[in-house]
Amino acid sequence: MGNRFVETKYYRFANTPDELLLESGEKLGPITLAYETYGVLNADKSNAVLIQHALSGDAHAAGFHPGDKNPGWWDNMIGQGKAFDTDKYFVICSNVLGGCLGSSGPSSINPETDKPYGLNFPLVTIKDMVTAQSHLIRHLGIKKLLCVAGGSMGGMQVLQWAASFPEMVRAAIPIATAARHSPQQIAFNEVGRQAIMADPDWKGGHYYGADVPARGLAVARMIGHITYMSDTSMEEKFGRRVKEEKSGTKFSPDFEVEGYLQYRGDNFVKRFDANSYLYITKALDRFDLANGTGFDKILAPAKDTRFLVIAFKSDWLYPPYQSKDIVRACKLAHLDVTYGEIDSSYGHDAFLIEVEKQEHFIKHFLRRVTDEQSI
Amino acid sequence: MGNRFVETKYYRFANTPDELLLESGEKLGPITLAYETYGVLNADKSNAVLIQHALSGDAHAAGFHPGDKNPGWWDNMIGQGKAFDTDKYFVICSNVLGGCLGSSGPSSINPETDKPYGLNFPLVTIKDMVTAQSHLIRHLGIKKLLCVAGGSMGGMQVLQWAASFPEMVRAAIPIATAARHSPQQIAFNEVGRQAIMADPDWKGGHYYGADVPARGLAVARMIGHITYMSDTSMEEKFGRRVKEEKSGTKFSPDFEVEGYLQYRGDNFVKRFDANSYLYITKALDRFDLANGTGFDKILAPAKDTRFLVIAFKSDWLYPPYQSKDIVRACKLAHLDVTYGEIDSSYGHDAFLIEVEKQEHFIKHFLRRVTDEQSI
Repeated sequence: MGNRFVETKYYRFANTPDELLLESGEKLGPITLAYETYGVLNADKSNAVLIQHALSGDAHAAGFHPGDKNPGWWDNMIGQGKAFDTDKYFVICSNVLGGCLGSSGPSSINPETDKPYGLNFPLVTIKDMVTAQSHLIRHLGIKKLLCVAGGSMGGMQVLQWAASFPEMVRAAIPIATAARHSPQQIAFNEVGRQAIMADPDWKGGHYYGADVPARGLAVARMIGHITYMSDTSMEEKFGRRVKEEKSGTKFSPDFEVEGYLQYRGDNFVKRFDANSYLYITKALDRFDLANGTGFDKILAPAKDTRFLVIAFKSDWLYPPYQSKDIVRACKLAHLDVTYGEIDSSYGHDAFLIEVEKQEHFIKHFLRRVTDEQSI
Repeated sequence: MGNRFVETKYYRFANTPDELLLESGEKLGPITLAYETYGVLNADKSNAVLIQHALSGDAHAAGFHPGDKNPGWWDNMIGQGKAFDTDKYFVICSNVLGGCLGSSGPSSINPETDKPYGLNFPLVTIKDMVTAQSHLIRHLGIKKLLCVAGGSMGGMQVLQWAASFPEMVRAAIPIATAARHSPQQIAFNEVGRQAIMADPDWKGGHYYGADVPARGLAVARMIGHITYMSDTSMEEKFGRRVKEEKSGTKFSPDFEVEGYLQYRGDNFVKRFDANSYLYITKALDRFDLANGTGFDKILAPAKDTRFLVIAFKSDWLYPPYQSKDIVRACKLAHLDVTYGEIDSSYGHDAFLIEVEKQEHFIKHFLRRVTDEQSI
C-alpha cells in the first residue's frame, strides 16, 4: 500500500516588493503557506489536484503524521484507489491564509514587531486566500491544475479559483457550498464571533502568551457543530439518551448530545486560534462571488473549465438551493456543469462522511476530464 | 373599543404545609405567580381561556400598561373580535414558575436567607409550572377552563395541562410545539446555557446586586433569534444589506442581520434574568410528555378534551413533524383532534405573526367547542 506517512511543508514567499497586495488594498508579507502533497507529479505536470479545506481544516488532508492515531481530514477521499486517486494524481492541500495551522495568520509573528499580529493582521478574503495559494502552485511548477476541489469554505475557494485563474483550472468541484452567504449563515458566524469577543480572555485579540479565550471559542465551535449535523443525524446519533455520569451541578449536561458538544468545543480550543476563527468566518461572510455583477458573469471566463457541483439533501447550513444557484450561473454562462445531489441524512458533515456517493461522482467526472485531456 | 389598559396582578399562595411539592421531590414556597386577565368571567365561569407564554414571554399577553408604546406579546390574538375574543372569553395569562417577570424564580428572594435564590432555587419542570398555575386557576374560582392555548413552550404547558388536569381542560391548542425536545433543540439550548455560564459575571449564578452576565445572555438570545426565523424570512428581512454606519473595528457588524441580532441580544438583557434562562431552558429540554410511557397513554385520560394542533411549514425549530407526532398520539388515544398546518415563511416566529391564519383555525375551533358546551 506504500508509505502512508506524510509531512507538512512550508512555502515562504515574497512578492515584489516582498508583499502580497490584498483585496482591501493593504499589503501583507512575507507569507508562509503550510502544505502537503500526496502522490507524484507527472512529467508534464498535468495531474495536479488542489484540495481546499473548510473553516477549521488544515493542510493535513490525508495520510498520517508519525505518532498520529487518525489520518488527515479527507483521508477517506484521498489515496490509492480513492476518489482522488494518488496512483493517478498529485494531490496538494494547503492551509488558508489567515489560518493558524502553519500558514500566516493573526497568531503568526508580525515581522515589524516580532510579536504575534493579533488584530493587526489585515482582514483577508477568500480571494486573498486563493491568490496566496496561486503563488504556491506556481512555486510547485504547475501551470494548470487538473482539478480544484473542496467542501464548504473549500468550495468557495474552488469557485474563486475558477473566477480568478480560469486558465489554471481544468476542472472544479465545489461541494456543499455557496457563492455567497445567506443572512442565516452570516448570523451563525456572527454569534460565534460574539461568543469569542465576549470572553474576557480575548482582550481585543491580544491574548497570545496568556490564557486564550477558551470558553468563547468553545461556544462558537458548539454552535458550528449543531449546524454541521442534521436534525435526523442528531436524532440517530444521540436521541434523548442521558449521560451515564452526571456531575452534581444543576446545569451540567444531562444528555449525551450536550456532553458531545462540550467535548467537541473543548477539543477545538486545543488546536485552533480564536482570532483565526474571527478572520476566517469574516472572510466567509464577506465572500460574494458575484462581486457586484452576477455569478454567471464572474464565472464566464472559465469556459474551458468543467464543473461538478455536489450538494447534500439534508445539509441545512449550505442547502442544495445554494448549489443549484451555482449550477444555474454556470448554465447561464454556457459552462460545462454537472450537478450531483446526494441523498444523505448527515447534514453538512456529509461531505466528510459520504465517501462512496461522492467517489462515484468524482471518479466518473475526473475520468471524463482526463479523457478529454488526452484526446 | 373599551379600555385597553391592563394591570399585572400577583397571586401568592401557600400549599399545606406552605409549599409546593415539585416533581423532583423538593418543596418550594410560598410561591408568587404574576398574571393578567382580559375580558369578563361569566356567571357560570365557563368562558375562561388560559394563555401560556413561550421561553421569554410574560404574563402581559395583551393590552397596554400605562406609558407603554407596545402592547402585550400576543395582543394581535387577544382582544375584542380577535382569535381569543375578549367580548366572549375571560382570558388569563400568567408568568411561569422559574421565570423572572413577576413569578417566583431564581431572582426571587429566598425567604430562608432574605437573599435572591440564585442556583439554590430548585430545578422546576413544565409539570411544576402547570401545577403551580392550577392553584391560580382554582383561586380564580374556575373549575374548568374552556381552553388552554399557547405556542412553543406555551404549547408544552398546554399538553401538560391536558395530561395532568384533563377534567379541567375542555379544549387544548398547542401551537408550534413538541411533546419532547429533539437533540437538536436540546443542543441549541445547551449552547445558550454554556454562553451564559462562560460569562465571568455569572459567578455560579450569584450575580444579583452586581454586574449581570450580560454578554453571555446576549449571545444565548442571539442564538435563539436565529432559530426563531427561517432562512427565507431572514433573506426577506435582511438579505446581505450592509449596515449604514460601520463602527471602525475589524469585527464590528458589517451586515444588518448582525446589527439586528446584537440589538435583540442587548435588549433582552435589560428585561430577562440569566438564571431564569438557565432554569426555563432546562425545563424545556427535560420535558417529555410521555414520561416513560407513550404520548398517547399520557393523553388518554383527556377523552373529553378537544385538541387543535397548529404548526408552521417553515418552522425548523419546532418542525411540523413534531406537531404531527402529537396529532398521531391523540388519534391513537381516540381523542378529538384537528391539525392545522399553516403555510408561512416566518419560521418559529410565525405563531406571533400569522394572526389571520391562526385566527381562522382558532375561532372555528372555539365556536365548535362552545356550541357543544351549550347543547
